[in-house]
Amino acid sequence: MTYQTNKELRRPLLALAMGDPAGISPELAARLTVSERVASKARLAIIGDRRILEEGAKVAGLPLDIETVNADAIGSSEKPVLIDLGNLGAQDLSHGEATLAGGRFAVENFMLALTLAKQGKVDGVCYTPFNKKAMRLAHPGYDDESRFIVELLQLQRRVREFNVLDTVWNARVTSHIPLKDVAASLSIDAIRDEIALTADCLRRSGIEHPRILVAALNPHAGDGGSFGMEEVDIIGPAIEAAAADGFDVSGPHSADTVFVTALRGKYHAVLTMYHDQGQIAMKLMGFERGVTMLGGLPFPVCTPAHGTAYDIAGKGLANSLASEEAVMLAARMVSTADRRGDEHSD
Amino acid sequence: MTYQTNKELRRPLLALAMGDPAGISPELAARLTVSERVASKARLAIIGDRRILEEGAKVAGLPLDIETVNADAIGSSEKPVLIDLGNLGAQDLSHGEATLAGGRFAVENFMLALTLAKQGKVDGVCYTPFNKKAMRLAHPGYDDESRFIVELLQLQRRVREFNVLDTVWNARVTSHIPLKDVAASLSIDAIRDEIALTADCLRRSGIEHPRILVAALNPHAGDGGSFGMEEVDIIGPAIEAAAADGFDVSGPHSADTVFVTALRGKYHAVLTMYHDQGQIAMKLMGFERGVTMLGGLPFPVCTPAHGTAYDIAGKGLANSLASEEAVMLAARMVSTADRRGDEHSD
Repeated sequence: MTYQTNKELRRPLLALAMGDPAGISPELAARLTVSERVASKARLAIIGDRRILEEGAKVAGLPLDIETVNADAIGSSEKPVLIDLGNLGAQDLSHGEATLAGGRFAVENFMLALTLAKQGKVDGVCYTPFNKKAMRLAHPGYDDESRFIVELLQLQRRVREFNVLDTVWNARVTSHIPLKDVAASLSIDAIRDEIALTADCLRRSGIEHPRILVAALNPHAGDGGSFGMEEVDIIGPAIEAAAADGFDVSGPHSADTVFVTALRGKYHAVLTMYHDQGQIAMKLMGFERGVTMLGGLPFPVCTPAHGTAYDIAGKGLANSLASEEAVMLAARMVSTADRRGDEHSD
Repeated sequence: MTYQTNKELRRPLLALAMGDPAGISPELAARLTVSERVASKARLAIIGDRRILEEGAKVAGLPLDIETVNADAIGSSEKPVLIDLGNLGAQDLSHGEATLAGGRFAVENFMLALTLAKQGKVDGVCYTPFNKKAMRLAHPGYDDESRFIVELLQLQRRVREFNVLDTVWNARVTSHIPLKDVAASLSIDAIRDEIALTADCLRRSGIEHPRILVAALNPHAGDGGSFGMEEVDIIGPAIEAAAADGFDVSGPHSADTVFVTALRGKYHAVLTMYHDQGQIAMKLMGFERGVTMLGGLPFPVCTPAHGTAYDIAGKGLANSLASEEAVMLAARMVSTADRRGDEHSD
């Protein structure tokens, strides 16, 4: 698995798919076009509609100086460019309302971004937030981005969500499933795979020797089998097997202390067994300013962790820091892969 | 359900059972005997062994000026008194080691404290931390304090654990059970009962109009049934029923945002569906300095949330703030019940 990169130009070329137009997504996209921090590390190809992007620039109080290009020409400019799909007019934009038109806009933009990445025409994909209701209107059965990508790209592999906040990564073995089904969904192989994928993504992000904490499933890590056997039967053996494979991995740790440990900084990631085990901690730690990275693809896909923020849509109040972080992480992952690829080909 | 109180004296009389002697418990007990903050709100009857308490005072670098009294005479003094059971000698004390002798010491002290409270000879019970391994050596089958009290006092009622950190209370519907059994353990009645008990305990602690947030079970609160039906079938109806009963209750809220909401201060408690759902949040929020309160008894039982701290035992480094908070909460609950009882009898 290697990233497609454009070797002639130093900065990775990233597609930025405009997300739900009714929230702060247009404003965030406009803010990214003028971010010097982003420009120093990545070239952006924004995918959406010029009218919506102009509306975002107006909301942000920013000038919009961006060239519209054909999808085949996106790599030629040093400055941000726009692929204008003409797929939503400003008159169809209603702030704070999830609509079919908004969902279709987000789906189309995302689809093209993924396709360009799959074809090697961009090095990675970023997107501004989606609205789940609008996505479902446009694409019935939509649950989350991971499943959506697998479906859109007709992949055989699993796509996994990672949450990144400052120096702490959170990966999870299960995600959007009922809590009652979590225990039965765990297996030694699934946990080993997740440890390996987490270590791989951490390395791609530039961490040479990733150290991973693994959470237990049951209260007090099962307390030696008193409150559940999964630590003894599944999680413990998976960790031992991963350690034997050469991964630097520790656990199973009680879920209620594992993030306290991670915050001390000696570890890079916490692998949790279920969605809320990690999300409760990450949200309390300030995950609104964090980044979600979708791993398991040949290219990085990153998005800010926060949502569409319908309540402040159109008000010029959007903070684009998390979106910038998403672009920076994607750029770093491409650059690291590129560097490692160069080393390998020497 | 009313608290037994000693009306002649203003300050509640609380039994303080000395916990595991190999940790910081003796030091904490000694520090409490000289706390002016504690003395202003409560009278203490310490239960344990003078030799161990003296050792604690020595470790703390404090003088020990405490009268030994018979259990029948504990209410007569304004100053802290000691019921010396002579049940552990300092020569049997080994810092940082869980032993049968240490477990027996903690069990005996706790048992007498509960008995005195049951008999109305004290108004409430506090205890310094137990060590689970030592407790199990002394009392096979010991799982947690809640079940232990039910067994010791041969109660028919349930005893429930509340975690209190600053202004946030956390109650839970299920506790020390395997995660896979949580969903099947939820019922409308169990959640209604827990809401009612939580509201009752909050009122006893002095909060006149308790406002309670209820967590969902599944990721994103089940997302309208996409990831689990318990919110629709059980938790939602339980909340509606409790609201119809007059409780100020809100939910089900996604577990990963409910504590973020609670921290904004408009609510007093979060009712979680399972152990780690609350504990992950509370520990990140600094629960080491919080208090555990056992509710559902005719008298309050409070203890610091932190553990025995074997690593700093005997070093004079123990911070007694959480122990003080435990005493203050128990005293407040007695005083509130007392005041409300007085009002009712006027």
